Amino acid sequence: MLPRGRPRALGAAALLLLLLLLGFFLLGGHLASFPCALPPRVPPDGRPRGAAACDPHPQADLGGHNRSDCVLPRPLPPKCELLHVAIVCAGHKTSRDVITLVKSLLFYRKNPLHLHLVTDAVARNILETLFHTWMVPAVRVSFYDADELKPQVSWIPNKHYSGLYGLMKLVLPGALPPDLARVIVLDTDVTFAADIAELWALFAHFSDEQVIGLVENQSDWYLGNLWRNHKPWPALGRGFNTGVILLWLDRLRQAGWKQMWKLTATQELLTLPATSLADQDIFNAVIKGHPALVRPLPCVWNVQLSDHTLAERCYLEAADIKAVHWNSPKKLRVKNKHVEFFRNLYLTFLEHDGNLLRRELFGCPSPRPPEAERLQQALAQLDEEDACFEFRQQQLTVHRVHITFLPHQPPPPRPHDVTLVAQLSMDRLQMLEALCRHWPGPMSLALYLTDAEAQQFLRFVEASEVLSARQDVAYHVVYREGPLYPINQIRNVALAQALTPYVFLTDIDFLPAYSLYDYLRASIEQLELGSGRKAALVVPAFETLHYQFSFPSSKADLLALLDAGSVHAFRHHEWPRGHTPTDYARWREAQAPYRVQWAVDYEPYVVVPRDCPRYDPRFVGFGWNKVAHVMELDAQEYEFLVLPEAFTIHLPHTPSLDISRFRSSTTYRGCLQALKDEFLQDLSRHYGAAALKYLTALQQP
Amino acid sequence: MLPRGRPRALGAAALLLLLLLLGFFLLGGHLASFPCALPPRVPPDGRPRGAAACDPHPQADLGGHNRSDCVLPRPLPPKCELLHVAIVCAGHKTSRDVITLVKSLLFYRKNPLHLHLVTDAVARNILETLFHTWMVPAVRVSFYDADELKPQVSWIPNKHYSGLYGLMKLVLPGALPPDLARVIVLDTDVTFAADIAELWALFAHFSDEQVIGLVENQSDWYLGNLWRNHKPWPALGRGFNTGVILLWLDRLRQAGWKQMWKLTATQELLTLPATSLADQDIFNAVIKGHPALVRPLPCVWNVQLSDHTLAERCYLEAADIKAVHWNSPKKLRVKNKHVEFFRNLYLTFLEHDGNLLRRELFGCPSPRPPEAERLQQALAQLDEEDACFEFRQQQLTVHRVHITFLPHQPPPPRPHDVTLVAQLSMDRLQMLEALCRHWPGPMSLALYLTDAEAQQFLRFVEASEVLSARQDVAYHVVYREGPLYPINQIRNVALAQALTPYVFLTDIDFLPAYSLYDYLRASIEQLELGSGRKAALVVPAFETLHYQFSFPSSKADLLALLDAGSVHAFRHHEWPRGHTPTDYARWREAQAPYRVQWAVDYEPYVVVPRDCPRYDPRFVGFGWNKVAHVMELDAQEYEFLVLPEAFTIHLPHTPSLDISRFRSSTTYRGCLQALKDEFLQDLSRHYGAAALKYLTALQQP
Repeated sequence: MLPRGRPRALGAAALLLLLLLLGFFLLGGHLASFPCALPPRVPPDGRPRGAAACDPHPQADLGGHNRSDCVLPRPLPPKCELLHVAIVCAGHKTSRDVITLVKSLLFYRKNPLHLHLVTDAVARNILETLFHTWMVPAVRVSFYDADELKPQVSWIPNKHYSGLYGLMKLVLPGALPPDLARVIVLDTDVTFAADIAELWALFAHFSDEQVIGLVENQSDWYLGNLWRNHKPWPALGRGFNTGVILLWLDRLRQAGWKQMWKLTATQELLTLPATSLADQDIFNAVIKGHPALVRPLPCVWNVQLSDHTLAERCYLEAADIKAVHWNSPKKLRVKNKHVEFFRNLYLTFLEHDGNLLRRELFGCPSPRPPEAERLQQALAQLDEEDACFEFRQQQLTVHRVHITFLPHQPPPPRPHDVTLVAQLSMDRLQMLEALCRHWPGPMSLALYLTDAEAQQFLRFVEASEVLSARQDVAYHVVYREGPLYPINQIRNVALAQALTPYVFLTDIDFLPAYSLYDYLRASIEQLELGSGRKAALVVPAFETLHYQFSFPSSKADLLALLDAGSVHAFRHHEWPRGHTPTDYARWREAQAPYRVQWAVDYEPYVVVPRDCPRYDPRFVGFGWNKVAHVMELDAQEYEFLVLPEAFTIHLPHTPSLDISRFRSSTTYRGCLQALKDEFLQDLSRHYGAAALKYLTALQQP
Repeated sequence: MLPRGRPRALGAAALLLLLLLLGFFLLGGHLASFPCALPPRVPPDGRPRGAAACDPHPQADLGGHNRSDCVLPRPLPPKCELLHVAIVCAGHKTSRDVITLVKSLLFYRKNPLHLHLVTDAVARNILETLFHTWMVPAVRVSFYDADELKPQVSWIPNKHYSGLYGLMKLVLPGALPPDLARVIVLDTDVTFAADIAELWALFAHFSDEQVIGLVENQSDWYLGNLWRNHKPWPALGRGFNTGVILLWLDRLRQAGWKQMWKLTATQELLTLPATSLADQDIFNAVIKGHPALVRPLPCVWNVQLSDHTLAERCYLEAADIKAVHWNSPKKLRVKNKHVEFFRNLYLTFLEHDGNLLRRELFGCPSPRPPEAERLQQALAQLDEEDACFEFRQQQLTVHRVHITFLPHQPPPPRPHDVTLVAQLSMDRLQMLEALCRHWPGPMSLALYLTDAEAQQFLRFVEASEVLSARQDVAYHVVYREGPLYPINQIRNVALAQALTPYVFLTDIDFLPAYSLYDYLRASIEQLELGSGRKAALVVPAFETLHYQFSFPSSKADLLALLDAGSVHAFRHHEWPRGHTPTDYARWREAQAPYRVQWAVDYEPYVVVPRDCPRYDPRFVGFGWNKVAHVMELDAQEYEFLVLPEAFTIHLPHTPSLDISRFRSSTTYRGCLQALKDEFLQDLSRHYGAAALKYLTALQQP
């Protein structure tokens, strides 16, 4: 590379600016109505990077002032400049929306990003977990408590569907850090179709007075002629839409923004009953009074889709839409002749594999969080030629986790309450309705899904009356990555999210006795587990081979089915060691809980306190995943107590892909053996001589 | 919009050019080594659209001459200009690769495209079906027969892994239509990360002499110092890579390209034994002799990934990579410290839902093919409020189809041969190995998958010794779209691709008797079906409820299992009408084929000639999909002949989501009833009085 002198480059930029201005001056006529200017800043390395940009005045014309109108398009901010984005987000649904927005942002971005998320407790919980597990390089996330900001806007009557949170964009200059000078503010229903750096670059075109960049409103709402007595808030012409805002924060603070908007809102509310479009009404009223504050932005940065949108005049001309705004309460169901096109764009990111957005930013060195760094080093140490490489890699994979993917009401605190904990993937969705009928209590279910499957799952729940009626079932999505099923990692997510003192650790293809939930709570109370007794309550497991099956309503019914041979002890034929220690013969007669001893390969379904040991995440794919957990319960001296009235029944299903691989591949079986050996070594290390019994037991034929 | 005068705009462009040139002259020094120029052409509407572009001379510097080096980046061709792309493609694997390349192209493109595909018969068959069913607006596809071009290059000895097809880029000027002036030529292992229009725009920077645009080779290969006695073909410096070529065809033809490259190749082959890098060696040798022909392109348009690539110097600087070239025989398994980044980019398009790329091009009106137009109209006529809207929409959906997704050897023509025809989705993959063991003959299997699942399927087959050994099993991918399972459309794809005179129409969860394939062929011959006897041979269906099951090796074995109660007639308990007409009691004793009569809801598994009626595509989701087909066989007077030694056994599996919906939703059942009624009406219309018997039969209780 040739050395580049800063003074020379600066001089060159200045000269070019002069020449360009001269050029536009001479072009005269129609082009003069779209003044273009070079961005004033030169990046730290002294090389000019920006370029002249088109800058239509939207009041004059709603049409698309895009690349085709501009002689010199696409300015860009300095390479690697950190871009700041603020989003207000509350609740389960909006959290899902934000993720789609962020995916579209990340897809096109080439700059480091700092996301400033103003959230309620629900959204914070979801998004903190998500970003923590997503580990996207060169993305920082800060959270701000929306509830603390509420008093600043709660005095404003508002009729918009976004509610109180819709107003919070007004208070961002005060809520964001005082040293943050500029920020792009986005509604959660925006989808990007271009690099946000191009939008950020438009800050460079603000005059000294301008503080708010906005796109004109693409409807006739503010013209006030939509219906008789339609009285919108005051606005300049069609007004502006606040789904995408360039906020020059430090200038706003200096200009006394807080007083300005409050005064305007108070004055308008003397004659108007409430805001109809939340913050947007107030922004427009302020701008009407202070037109010099606003910097109009090209329409393509906020293509607004509603039933009667005028956006078509923008995008038909533009061909390159930069950001779409689903600003109709109908969202994707809006009637619009091009809605299929926009839906496709939205679905592209909705269903995009978020794991692929973990790619690093070349040329913008950004330190990884220590966790990501350790992970990277561990992965780098793996040997790709190792026969068990896939197992090693899968164990190290950190899966993106979206907790409480659907609305969820945490159970009220009750001392003996039990959450059913299980994991599943798409091919077991059809179990959910039956499970809901059998278990009326809280559930924490982890689903192992791709991004696209998560949407199918959402539609499945919404279409089911049984499922959508249940607010006490928490669904946590663990995003798929890698060739082996990380069963214990998924179980651990479900287990970590259980909120009751006890958990029933089960598998998705079992249906519990209808009475089990009540019976377990009663048993926990009677056995006084709360007072420090360390026990795992065993729920005896059975199986039926019939698709259509009349579920026994009592233990007596079950015993009759057992006698008739239509129900058996679970895996009685294929793998008796898994459940034989439960002692089915004794259970038939038992009137009271009885203690049983651990034995090799025992893997009962148990009820334990929430703080029980986690599942060992090394067991991926088929085999030993529950066995190891039960062994660890025994090592920690849990007593196994079989409950005489409890039972659960396994329904028939297709064998999993992993069990097929286990059966057909000697490598697979060899790798599983290696995992077992390592687990046992760790167990010895951790529990010392007490763990010797497992080694001895396993060595017996 | 303001009117724009052509003369004024032309004058403005000329003036701007002058000013810019003056600017760069004055800038002097290092920038002078990257001359920038405005494109010479002004589009038909008189508005200047292009912009100045950076134009590094790659010999001087391998570094990234990207946006950061350019004062005026991103020229674009006229809006809606048709861009031409040529790709040479042969075989099953390369066809899959081309689709990923095309997906990346379509994702970013904003212009109409014309794809010129030079293919062998296999690739043509695959890609014609694919594009026909994909129906992407504003994409035209033309095919050229690679085999016809072979003689023009087959005289050149070539050691490159791409084989003869690797040389065919040399003959494109003669092979493509004579009126085609310019084309972008791409290797199948290229992935785009930007709009190809930006690449096309670089044609505007060619001098009058330049005819070939190329990116410098990003390795030291042509420097000839990689190992002792390494003697590469002659090249200018590092030479150029031909994975991405801008070919100015009419100039090449005028310049006598054909003679030129042949002469050069002949001369070099006097001293060199063969080409090592196929066409690339010859292009470089020609350029070495005629340096004025080449227009160097910015390195970001062909970022070459191999184990020892020098591409890093390009992309670390660039931050915006435009096209990645997997030019190592190891492809995605190449060792490169940033390979994860590039894999992500590749996987993005590999797994991208191709249906989403059907979105139209705004602002570039392009007539749809008549089929797409009819479809659009039919969809527009649907009523979104109709309770059965989902069914109607699903029936009309045209699914993308990728036939022979994996290597496939068509069976040799044999007069009594039978292909097993079935369909499946991901949750039945584990059936495939067992099916291969039970059926040694040809199979045509249609898989209903997402783009991402198709890749999982590919890995699954590659990892299985049993599956990868079978060349007579054709797998056809039908891409998922819509909420209901289009079972009969998928079956029809498998049926249409069967290449033997007879087909065995079965379901994926059945395993046929080991002897069935041989027995069926013998039966067809004995029954003289070839001589016009219209028969459907019934293969009696049974079921077991055991996961692990010792498959009967003969009819006697099966009868013993039946007597022991571990096997039953299929759905004997849940839905006896489906198979009762097969007359299992008679079958037990039968020594010869016997005729049975159709009855209501009969749905046997049958062997029929390949030209049998198709499945009725209106039946989507669960119910009546086979029943309707068997009814139509009966209406067409097929006689049902039960074969005494044939049997097939259903293995247990989880009920499908669709059957769950059927059971739980009255709307679903109502819609199915409506479909049945419409089917029966159509049957009456088509078969007249003969179809009355179905109506009468169905009306009986």
